[in-house]
Amino acid sequence: MKTILILGAGRSATSLIDYLLDQSTDLQWSIRVCEANISLAEESIKGHQNGEAVPFDINDDSQRSTEIGGADIVISMLPARFHYLAAKTCAELGINMLTASYITDEIQALDKEFRSKGKLLIMECGLDPGIDHMSGMRVLDRIKRDGHQLKGFETFTGGLLAPNGDDNPWQYKFTWNPRNVVLAGQGIVKFIQMGKFKYIPYSRLFRRYEMIHIPEYGYFEGYANRDSLQYLDVYNLRGIETLYRGTLRRPGFCKSWNVFIQLGATDDSYQMDGVDKMTHREFINSFLYYNPNDSIELKLAHYLNIELEAEVMHRLKWLGIFENELVGLKEGTPAQILEHILKKKWTLRPDEKDMIVMWHKFDFLDGQKHRQIQSHMVIEGKNSRNTAMSLTVGLPLGIATKMVLTGAIKSSGVQIPIKNEIYNPILNELEKSGITFSEIETDPKLAQSVSMS
Amino acid sequence: MKTILILGAGRSATSLIDYLLDQSTDLQWSIRVCEANISLAEESIKGHQNGEAVPFDINDDSQRSTEIGGADIVISMLPARFHYLAAKTCAELGINMLTASYITDEIQALDKEFRSKGKLLIMECGLDPGIDHMSGMRVLDRIKRDGHQLKGFETFTGGLLAPNGDDNPWQYKFTWNPRNVVLAGQGIVKFIQMGKFKYIPYSRLFRRYEMIHIPEYGYFEGYANRDSLQYLDVYNLRGIETLYRGTLRRPGFCKSWNVFIQLGATDDSYQMDGVDKMTHREFINSFLYYNPNDSIELKLAHYLNIELEAEVMHRLKWLGIFENELVGLKEGTPAQILEHILKKKWTLRPDEKDMIVMWHKFDFLDGQKHRQIQSHMVIEGKNSRNTAMSLTVGLPLGIATKMVLTGAIKSSGVQIPIKNEIYNPILNELEKSGITFSEIETDPKLAQSVSMS
Repeated sequence: MKTILILGAGRSATSLIDYLLDQSTDLQWSIRVCEANISLAEESIKGHQNGEAVPFDINDDSQRSTEIGGADIVISMLPARFHYLAAKTCAELGINMLTASYITDEIQALDKEFRSKGKLLIMECGLDPGIDHMSGMRVLDRIKRDGHQLKGFETFTGGLLAPNGDDNPWQYKFTWNPRNVVLAGQGIVKFIQMGKFKYIPYSRLFRRYEMIHIPEYGYFEGYANRDSLQYLDVYNLRGIETLYRGTLRRPGFCKSWNVFIQLGATDDSYQMDGVDKMTHREFINSFLYYNPNDSIELKLAHYLNIELEAEVMHRLKWLGIFENELVGLKEGTPAQILEHILKKKWTLRPDEKDMIVMWHKFDFLDGQKHRQIQSHMVIEGKNSRNTAMSLTVGLPLGIATKMVLTGAIKSSGVQIPIKNEIYNPILNELEKSGITFSEIETDPKLAQSVSMS
Repeated sequence: MKTILILGAGRSATSLIDYLLDQSTDLQWSIRVCEANISLAEESIKGHQNGEAVPFDINDDSQRSTEIGGADIVISMLPARFHYLAAKTCAELGINMLTASYITDEIQALDKEFRSKGKLLIMECGLDPGIDHMSGMRVLDRIKRDGHQLKGFETFTGGLLAPNGDDNPWQYKFTWNPRNVVLAGQGIVKFIQMGKFKYIPYSRLFRRYEMIHIPEYGYFEGYANRDSLQYLDVYNLRGIETLYRGTLRRPGFCKSWNVFIQLGATDDSYQMDGVDKMTHREFINSFLYYNPNDSIELKLAHYLNIELEAEVMHRLKWLGIFENELVGLKEGTPAQILEHILKKKWTLRPDEKDMIVMWHKFDFLDGQKHRQIQSHMVIEGKNSRNTAMSLTVGLPLGIATKMVLTGAIKSSGVQIPIKNEIYNPILNELEKSGITFSEIETDPKLAQSVSMS
């Protein structure tokens, strides 16, 4: 019997837990789900004989050591800020570990200790980061293996609402952590395009999107995501002319979301005044100039140079931000208040499903000939438990867990899934679960490219 | 013989040191100028018999204690981050202290210790903060004393270039710390207008200015400065409808400076790539979309919706930002690189003088009648040593030093100059040095007000 320790049983952990429990009898696994909220843990294992719900406090040093020390592998689904604590204990006790979160310098520094004990910590092994690395590296490695010269790599992912014929003009709802959606794009964005380093400040980010067409699914807007330059080394692509990672939204989203950024309504750095008595309408007005003769709608339209009848205004009105309705919080930053208002409209109904869309574009020289490959993957959620987000985050982790426990992955140290020894078995098994990429060769002269204005 | 210890002999300390040395024989003062750069200290005392230049390291605990312990009063002209270290030592040893910098929570917490020893720390005793508090509070207190009800207080200050008939289309050069000018306005801006709390994010700040007219000096643009709301309590103005602190620039400045903000060129949070080989033109291009067919000028104009022939473009070209000239730094953040480029054009020539402009507006009810007073002060620098900035920062500190040493100010604890016991003697003596305010009563129906779009 091998012991798998799962830290955290939030929404994104359900498909991972299902996957592991399903195979637990065959593979002789005992699965301990550690959670501060014990009913969440119990619900996640649904009384399965190989599952156990464990009341857990990550900050309890003694419990953390005991639980991790008794495990063969640890998967942390906790908020990212807790990963280091778990990783440090895993390093000390020589236990394998996996997460779906971005690697940090602090965690990278544990590499030597994991390596010296022959143990493995795989970070960024979910969807984005995760499947994006794996599916991108598989094609990048193949192009290199074929002797071609890479010119560009662009990769975009979006967690979206599945089309449902509804009248939601945003074609968007929260399908993962709402707070992260509200804060998305803060900090500097860096990428390289045709050999030029490019930088976009937050206040311009949602105006510099490109339109991307995906066969059968139509058009999407893609905006740049964080620091793509660090992947020059991570992906071993020094010398490439274009490297760009981005996020996908439905057409019209970026221009409308930009309104909140321009107002300052996504700022998380200060507490607002008078929140307990604030209405949606007053929240918006606090970012606009004073003029008692103009309506809030007119002031906003004028301030941001939007036509009153434009689609953007329609989307804003649909969200209810101009209503005389109390926000319903006692205190909060602009970002917290905006999140609270948005949740009233952007929470999935039981009949609604989410959708994950990923798209890559590879440009390379085959001899003197410029060639281009586009690749995409789209998956819809099965139900409110096995959402597309939960499946695409959980399955790579579950498969990697199996590969590590069965010895199919033999690496050690702190890794992200960019080696074929790791990405090949994971991608192969993901295909069996319907997470497959379609590849087409496109004409580089005609195809869409990063050309945002 | 009383000992005055001055920490730091930078550009803004010269008028302070001159003022103290001039009176040192009459009043029997010994003035010790402590400076890491000893030649700066020597230059500042010009061989005066009552002055001494002391090589000094604020981080040397033993030297700090010895020097401060031997003084009757300490004036810190060091960068703001060092004030706490000096203030803590003054509190421990029971020594009076003055600075021209904003008070911090950390320094406020020393209040009890200063008070228990009957000693005084006056913060914000320069120009802005400093003379703005004093000259504003004098009128506010008078309006209250007359039994009127305050409705609004707006106060603006600018450190500018004195008019010289030059062709500088910005009518601006660096007349104080260039780094602070480049970073000005970062962080959130808060104020209250007609009873409504208002918040402006950095990306919108320089588009929301008001035009202010000052008799004999013409028009200025005023944009909001930091968190005005904290002065509701500091100035004892709870219940007032409008409270707004701002910064003055010459017309056209804000819209043109906003270009750098929109590009992201004032960001100080990350290091750029390839700085050693970067030209001015490439620096600007790194914030613009890629398109090899368009000029950088056209891309910028299009990106920010500026006409190619507009005044804004003329100001940008005058700065040389489109030139194929090497920046001349090995590395740097965007803000550091921009500062370096701007210094090439925005450094005062020996024949150029600076100018300080301060403007207040007070609205109040006299019975049922809405009345309004405007007040302004303008002073030009005398020469490159006694700049207007150095005079207006140094003289309030020098006068306060004299008042403390002669017992004319008897307060204790951590203070800012808002009590009449402190502001009256300082303002009275400032008038003798030509720093005077002109007051006019204006028609509240006609007068300019905060109405930014």
